[in-house]
Amino acid sequence: MEHQQWQDPSRPAAERAADLLARLTLEEKLAQLSSIWPGSDGDGEDVAPLQGSLTEPELDLNALLPHGLGQVTRPFGTNPVDPADRARTLADDQRKVVAANRHGIPALAHEECLTGFTAWQATVLPTPLAWGATFHPELVEETARLIGDSMRSVGIHQGLSPVLDVVRDPRWGRTEETIGEDPYLVSTIATGYVRGLESAGVVATLKHFAGYASSRGARNHAPVSMGPRELADVVLPPFEMALREGGARSVMATYVDLDGVPAHGDAWLLTRLLREEWGFTGTVVSDYFGVTFLETTHGVAGSPAEAGALALTAGVDVELPAVRAFGLPLLKAVRSGEVDEALVDRAALRVLTQKAELGLLDPGWSPEPSALADGSGTVDLDPPQLRAAARRLAEESVVLLANPRGVLPLAPTARIAVTGPFADEVAAMLGCYSFPRHVGVEHPELPLGVEVPTLLESLRAELPDAVITTEGTDGAEVVVVAVGDRSGLFGRGTSGEGCDAADLELPDGQGALLDELLAAEDGPPVVLVLCAGRPYALGRWADRLAAIVQTFFPGEEGGPALAGVLSGRVNPSGRLPVGVPALPGGQPWTYLAPPLGLLGDASNIDPTPLYPFGHGLSYTSFAWDAPSLSTRTTDTGGGADVEITVTNTGDLAGTEVVQLYLHDPVAAVVRPVNRLIGFARVELAAGASARVRFAFHADLAAYTVAPGRRVTDPGDLELRLAASSGDIRHRLPLTLTGPERVVGHDRRLRCPAEVIAG
Amino acid sequence: MEHQQWQDPSRPAAERAADLLARLTLEEKLAQLSSIWPGSDGDGEDVAPLQGSLTEPELDLNALLPHGLGQVTRPFGTNPVDPADRARTLADDQRKVVAANRHGIPALAHEECLTGFTAWQATVLPTPLAWGATFHPELVEETARLIGDSMRSVGIHQGLSPVLDVVRDPRWGRTEETIGEDPYLVSTIATGYVRGLESAGVVATLKHFAGYASSRGARNHAPVSMGPRELADVVLPPFEMALREGGARSVMATYVDLDGVPAHGDAWLLTRLLREEWGFTGTVVSDYFGVTFLETTHGVAGSPAEAGALALTAGVDVELPAVRAFGLPLLKAVRSGEVDEALVDRAALRVLTQKAELGLLDPGWSPEPSALADGSGTVDLDPPQLRAAARRLAEESVVLLANPRGVLPLAPTARIAVTGPFADEVAAMLGCYSFPRHVGVEHPELPLGVEVPTLLESLRAELPDAVITTEGTDGAEVVVVAVGDRSGLFGRGTSGEGCDAADLELPDGQGALLDELLAAEDGPPVVLVLCAGRPYALGRWADRLAAIVQTFFPGEEGGPALAGVLSGRVNPSGRLPVGVPALPGGQPWTYLAPPLGLLGDASNIDPTPLYPFGHGLSYTSFAWDAPSLSTRTTDTGGGADVEITVTNTGDLAGTEVVQLYLHDPVAAVVRPVNRLIGFARVELAAGASARVRFAFHADLAAYTVAPGRRVTDPGDLELRLAASSGDIRHRLPLTLTGPERVVGHDRRLRCPAEVIAG
Repeated sequence: MEHQQWQDPSRPAAERAADLLARLTLEEKLAQLSSIWPGSDGDGEDVAPLQGSLTEPELDLNALLPHGLGQVTRPFGTNPVDPADRARTLADDQRKVVAANRHGIPALAHEECLTGFTAWQATVLPTPLAWGATFHPELVEETARLIGDSMRSVGIHQGLSPVLDVVRDPRWGRTEETIGEDPYLVSTIATGYVRGLESAGVVATLKHFAGYASSRGARNHAPVSMGPRELADVVLPPFEMALREGGARSVMATYVDLDGVPAHGDAWLLTRLLREEWGFTGTVVSDYFGVTFLETTHGVAGSPAEAGALALTAGVDVELPAVRAFGLPLLKAVRSGEVDEALVDRAALRVLTQKAELGLLDPGWSPEPSALADGSGTVDLDPPQLRAAARRLAEESVVLLANPRGVLPLAPTARIAVTGPFADEVAAMLGCYSFPRHVGVEHPELPLGVEVPTLLESLRAELPDAVITTEGTDGAEVVVVAVGDRSGLFGRGTSGEGCDAADLELPDGQGALLDELLAAEDGPPVVLVLCAGRPYALGRWADRLAAIVQTFFPGEEGGPALAGVLSGRVNPSGRLPVGVPALPGGQPWTYLAPPLGLLGDASNIDPTPLYPFGHGLSYTSFAWDAPSLSTRTTDTGGGADVEITVTNTGDLAGTEVVQLYLHDPVAAVVRPVNRLIGFARVELAAGASARVRFAFHADLAAYTVAPGRRVTDPGDLELRLAASSGDIRHRLPLTLTGPERVVGHDRRLRCPAEVIAG
Repeated sequence: MEHQQWQDPSRPAAERAADLLARLTLEEKLAQLSSIWPGSDGDGEDVAPLQGSLTEPELDLNALLPHGLGQVTRPFGTNPVDPADRARTLADDQRKVVAANRHGIPALAHEECLTGFTAWQATVLPTPLAWGATFHPELVEETARLIGDSMRSVGIHQGLSPVLDVVRDPRWGRTEETIGEDPYLVSTIATGYVRGLESAGVVATLKHFAGYASSRGARNHAPVSMGPRELADVVLPPFEMALREGGARSVMATYVDLDGVPAHGDAWLLTRLLREEWGFTGTVVSDYFGVTFLETTHGVAGSPAEAGALALTAGVDVELPAVRAFGLPLLKAVRSGEVDEALVDRAALRVLTQKAELGLLDPGWSPEPSALADGSGTVDLDPPQLRAAARRLAEESVVLLANPRGVLPLAPTARIAVTGPFADEVAAMLGCYSFPRHVGVEHPELPLGVEVPTLLESLRAELPDAVITTEGTDGAEVVVVAVGDRSGLFGRGTSGEGCDAADLELPDGQGALLDELLAAEDGPPVVLVLCAGRPYALGRWADRLAAIVQTFFPGEEGGPALAGVLSGRVNPSGRLPVGVPALPGGQPWTYLAPPLGLLGDASNIDPTPLYPFGHGLSYTSFAWDAPSLSTRTTDTGGGADVEITVTNTGDLAGTEVVQLYLHDPVAAVVRPVNRLIGFARVELAAGASARVRFAFHADLAAYTVAPGRRVTDPGDLELRLAASSGDIRHRLPLTLTGPERVVGHDRRLRCPAEVIAG
């Protein structure tokens, strides 16, 4: 049989998709916009609908599959099943899908991959907040490529990561899923992740578009109060960079409404901005049940059909996780003329184009997973190279907040009392989207799937000559106390999706344990290890603690990484991606602020963090020479090079993170006192120096003066070289001259930093 | 000498102002835009500048006064000086001003009047939050007229009240200055106040325009994140009603920026919306130092001249409290051509028009205060009729939150233990803008000026046959414990301007006192009396308290009012103007919300209040009959009458507040589940009935679908008759038909309620 045009791999994907689209019935086109979630209570043998109240009640697979299927939702889902079996089941399901529809179009399979592939026995990586703490986008990129390789090898085409929400209130339970409170840090780390995943051939999904992190009171799904300038200058830039420099091929709409308009029904956001202005050509997918939420929680649609029509019109192409509004309700609405079929065509064309790009429409396409091609019959989702990446990310993400008397590193023969609820607890290492927490919280009997050494186990392995006790603190030279979060979903945890906090007090009364340990004036020094999904207020104890080590769910290699930092094998290099507050109340706060009530006596609430964004210590010391600036004046379209030499003045190899902030003293609208515009992670042997150059461009000083109008304007700026947002080392005045210049989506988003002499 | 045109009282004020303006030099025009704050450390004998860092350093009265003077700031200001002396000093100062400038133009004198005239020995009324609790706009109007009479009688022309900020986060210290969390309640109460003040001939000043209550983290002066729909539908409506129905003649810009644009520099807000769309013709005054804050805190101006130019251009007419940016800096900027003199003319014309309206330009104008016309040489600022109004407002503002076992009212011969830090403390009664708190917090040695009985003193007077002890609780049949706030300014209090809270935990560890009192299982019943400026979380104790009585700084008659409620002489009728939360964290929250994360397991933080907006109990009981609705269908420009009969089924006279809420199940944007659109305060003798009619109009269902576009649209509504926002008694379905209808500033803002049979 001769191939039809859409089957010809030599033709452009969009052309093939258009050809195929023209051959489809309305039912077949709609089927491409929907997904099916294989049953979570079975063993994955069948493509079956989700059990639960949100399942389409009339779903009939025999009636549905002959029309085709857009996506398969989370085929590696919910139970601890051998990944090779999962891969085989997915291939079987794909064969059913292909056989059932007359064009033989396979489904696109998506999975979660927030802390690595969310599958049983897959590597559990640190949370995104820990990636943020590394300030190391290249490492994140390498790691994401390995994640993507794993996923692609078992038949997964799309990963629902990364999260680009910029933290605005760390009480939000999903703070652990974010990269931090600074848009530039989020942009660069997330773009690294996207490059890695996409380079493995897996579609990266940017989420949540847009504004989710600003839910009122940090309550998940609560409405967002925000104006267009804050949206443009804080929330959207990470999406811009991840699309333009990362090449992400999918975007997920967010659950929340912004000033009354739910994202799933926001044509301005999903079409006007994303596609017409930014030129995005991939797919927009709904967040799970986000389309029906337009009816059931937002009240902007009166029926599933109205919800479907609103979302489709706005620009949602694919309804996840299961067919509901985009199924029969939308079919009837198109048939009755209430919804224009052209809107269905628009979405289906995007889906089919992506399938063409992914090779799913090629004549030789096979559902057989490459992971099984070696005939071994086994799949290793926790291979040595991913485990090594997990270790390196974990090590670089540990932040040493305080060590005033040098009690760290611990002596190899120290007598150490290890205590606290997270000292011997694997939950200390695992974020809410890791398989063991995402599924296992409800099923604690499930095996973990991967080896996750606890802090205690790791310390014992790390310091074999130390005397480590867990019964009391008498006799001990030093106490290590581990406190933090137990991550989970929907209220079944102290951090994670739906696990919001009322304040930033250490959860579950763990502060009382610190009070107790620190009560004795002549007690041994206490080292606090925080294993948490968000920053917690530490002002009550900071002065009395001998050292503070912060981690953000460092993953399966978190225990050895932490032990390595405590022993000194690893010289800590993490920097805070979110500020640590002094006091638990007074949220929200972010460092991206004008002087908040700090001038005069405006407020008695001082939100200044105890440890600010960007803060982190090392076991060695660094000297910062006087910097140079290539010019003191440039025009509003020009640039200037900033150079500085940093020297490791201690006896240990270590890493300094040179941070570049912008201060704009007079602008047309209120601007934050400081914002990060560049950074360089500089690894230095003991005694070594490196010279770093930042290529500043005026575009990095651009800001939004009115909706849709972003400019660079003439005036004085100050470039600030800093060790953290609160530790500015050098201020370099720079004057922009010439006329105000309007900049768009094609402006420079990045301030390249390179080591020019080392 | 023949009078010039501007001196002719028979001509329109605007015409007279224009004539006068044409005769003024630039210096003279600018002088009309400025104020002088008489020295706060003197005795008011002289018009002298404010002492302090913000004083214009080069201010030279001899150079300044010959050009004239726009305003005098707070001439009754800062020290306990006999009001007759103050009035005479002001008259003397006016004579100096008149004599010094060649046209003899007097200054306009303004004062604060948030809880009554802020002068020594003037009646201290309840705070606005207590006015809100009365749900009684007519009483507020009567009271404001008396306040205005007092002020006018001593030479004051303008009062810097009311506050129309709608509470969005009660941690904000200025919550006590607001009327509550609902725009309709704020609108109606504030409009009553404005009518009263203006009917006395005193210019009412609507503040703070606009958005102040939404400062991030409830920190005073912090930036506001808000979009145009929330601004239009929550923040602005009270200003619309108070201007249109109240006739307020001045508006004060707010300190904060909204999405980056500070109000003092916001031409859209101050000119496009306020004047061009709403038709406002009065004056816009700055908040104190708000013009210079454009430079010093917002960073949108590089110099005082730039700040002045920005504010003047945006639409600020008068700089308060002292000449600064609008003085020499603006003069130079106009001279150099940087600022168009026409902008100075625009502002000066408004000021002079207002002076003409106030009679200040009339040939016969005399600075002699009418209060001294009787020759007695004394002025009574706390006359019996104001004291009576203070008493009635206080009595009607007390909210009985809980009384499950009927322990209240107290028996006349009860053995009562009275305890708690606010039991015998006048600060329990006084808001931050009362003279004794506004000034006295820094000078506690100052005499109060008025008699303010404490709760203990009042209880002893109220219950002469009771045995009242203050030493321990043994023996007592009932314990009355008074806890709450000490109001102050700039951090010197737990409530008040600049006294923000990190959470809604009772301040200063007062919760521990409740823990202690409630520790014994067989202890006497405990009645909690809250004397506070904001709601505090009561969930920890509510189940164990015998009764809870909430007051919001009830003023100088608060003690007797509270004692009257405790004794049963006063049947409580107050209703909560802000919800009382169960838990101290999780802010901000407001009842004007879609179902905030309450559907499914979206968040583990449940913000449902312990006692919701509108809640309040009585010592009697009420039966609500089945209501009637005049039609089930009306068009998008139509209306429907709702009627209900309420009966006092108890043995005591009492007051029910029938509340009408609107539920709009499907709208074009996300809407709150409930919002107040009408209420009726129904006083009923024991056994009596009254029938109340609400004249609902579709305009009340209007909402903003896009910036500047407010509509009523077809669809189903539900009118909810309720005893509080959480206690809905009847749901009346009503369908709007016909086309979507665009409504503007001239839409109906009010749902009239009347007792049609009683």
